[in-house]
Amino acid sequence: MPRKRQNEDSILRKIADSFRSASWNQGQSVALGIGDDASLFRPKREHETILTCDWFLEGTHFFREKHPPDAVGWKCLARAMSDVAAMGGTPRCFLLSLALPETHTGRWLDLFLAGLRRAARKFRCALAGGDTTRRDKILVNVTVVGEMPAGRALLRSKADTGNIVYVSGRLGEAELGLRILQRSKGMPRKKNPLTKKHLYPKPRLALGQWLAKKGLATAMMDISDGLSSDLSRLCAASAVGAQLESSKIPRVRLPDVALKQRHDPLRLALHGGDDYELLFTVSTHRAKLLPSSFRGVRLTAIGRITQKRLLLLRDENGRAHQLMPRGWDPFRKKL
Amino acid sequence: MPRKRQNEDSILRKIADSFRSASWNQGQSVALGIGDDASLFRPKREHETILTCDWFLEGTHFFREKHPPDAVGWKCLARAMSDVAAMGGTPRCFLLSLALPETHTGRWLDLFLAGLRRAARKFRCALAGGDTTRRDKILVNVTVVGEMPAGRALLRSKADTGNIVYVSGRLGEAELGLRILQRSKGMPRKKNPLTKKHLYPKPRLALGQWLAKKGLATAMMDISDGLSSDLSRLCAASAVGAQLESSKIPRVRLPDVALKQRHDPLRLALHGGDDYELLFTVSTHRAKLLPSSFRGVRLTAIGRITQKRLLLLRDENGRAHQLMPRGWDPFRKKL
Repeated sequence: MPRKRQNEDSILRKIADSFRSASWNQGQSVALGIGDDASLFRPKREHETILTCDWFLEGTHFFREKHPPDAVGWKCLARAMSDVAAMGGTPRCFLLSLALPETHTGRWLDLFLAGLRRAARKFRCALAGGDTTRRDKILVNVTVVGEMPAGRALLRSKADTGNIVYVSGRLGEAELGLRILQRSKGMPRKKNPLTKKHLYPKPRLALGQWLAKKGLATAMMDISDGLSSDLSRLCAASAVGAQLESSKIPRVRLPDVALKQRHDPLRLALHGGDDYELLFTVSTHRAKLLPSSFRGVRLTAIGRITQKRLLLLRDENGRAHQLMPRGWDPFRKKL
Repeated sequence: MPRKRQNEDSILRKIADSFRSASWNQGQSVALGIGDDASLFRPKREHETILTCDWFLEGTHFFREKHPPDAVGWKCLARAMSDVAAMGGTPRCFLLSLALPETHTGRWLDLFLAGLRRAARKFRCALAGGDTTRRDKILVNVTVVGEMPAGRALLRSKADTGNIVYVSGRLGEAELGLRILQRSKGMPRKKNPLTKKHLYPKPRLALGQWLAKKGLATAMMDISDGLSSDLSRLCAASAVGAQLESSKIPRVRLPDVALKQRHDPLRLALHGGDDYELLFTVSTHRAKLLPSSFRGVRLTAIGRITQKRLLLLRDENGRAHQLMPRGWDPFRKKL
């Protein structure tokens, strides 16, 4: 593939150009975008700024030969925006740090930027700046800047004894998608519904904003590493425990016998990562106000917050077992 | 070295703990730090938020066996803060993305955090959040959040024909330090004055803020990749050119004959990276108000902005040569 030799400035220009024409990228909030030493963001009055950053690294979080470049672009931003959703906030802009081999500054970068742009447009998050460098492996780091009215953010630390524990959507779908990807040869078909949630997760921004605005949730976080690990973090932050009903956990559907033989939907739902669903707690008297779904996304009560600082899972026979955090931890296991 | 097995949460806790006790880290501006899905920053009224991110990667920007861990910690933050200095702003907080091998989660991480903390304390920049993961190579990405009164940021794009071009400090010192480091065995002595600027650069925050506040500079940026490359960017952004006087460029001093035989101070000053000095332009009538130094840092007029969009360097004999951008570009050369 003959190609003009790239340098750092020309790659930055390519990235900037691919976003410049988009009307939604000319948001009020970014006063100065790519091209200077830093970017300028205009915060709204009486609002707090939400800040979050996320690694997305070849070999750790994705594979060059398994993940379509546009999925890498979509997902690196979507998962960082999910942290804004988890506070109940609205994303405004993001910074993209990208390191890549010179061989990937042509078509791969174009496709990556197309996926990134799709996610940015869908969730109205403007590209404000970034940093590029050369590297043998593809490395991505995304910082998302969001906003919300001061003092209204939903924290992990506010769950109270007796609160009902909820999750959005179905859990384990992304983990199943990852496993199918790992067993398959080459890149997956984009339309395969089983890998879609792993490749193109949707941050639950509208749901998070609605829960914060209505004051329905006491505590909230997103499920990025798996329910068992993330609920354990929410409980630790709130100095409480929780008891879940295994029968109630909304789990991935396995469409055929072969998949059913290989995978246990409950285990996928408890420990699978990358779903980016919301995990939140609601006081008993507010729980009545909660619909069973929000804009097509199921909201399911799966258990209760307990005073005793333990994570318990009650099985179908009513027996309670301790639930250990067995979700994704990059310092514990290799992918 | 026996050591408790680390996981992602324990590493995050170690990072958070190492900053928690510091009183300067409890700034008014960070409403919520490490430990939730995202951090919350409280912007000042009538201020704009400055956003910048910077890679600092083993093998590209530093070497495990050459760079002391505390220098890696200091420098990854200092160079990102330099972008805030380049706008004339004040750093408020930062996000740390850190990927490292399990072997480096003990003593190496402690020393890294000590260097990081020193830079954060010196320049009053609170740790607001971050992301950690495991990786064979040490990868760092830092996002710095700064502030300045709305509309007062100094941009690259405002240099005008006839403006005088200034630089702070001496140029080429960091590049010389890097070369000495590359030729030496093992880690350098921390007190070696020749490697100090390469290892522990100081962002020119006070100078940048003063220039912005006094309205002295028309355009400004920091010199991170080398004068020839960075001035070329400033000129491109301002749609102007520049003519420099080679005799006036403040350059690194070579203390002994051996160094003088190996290195050309002018070339180091023109093309050497990592100095993090400020490059700025001043209108002729404001130039009279500029002192020859600011808080011990020299301010030197090195040439003028020209209408003709060329970079020229006049040698000692008055002959003008075209100056090509030959500074650091990760897509052009290997370190």
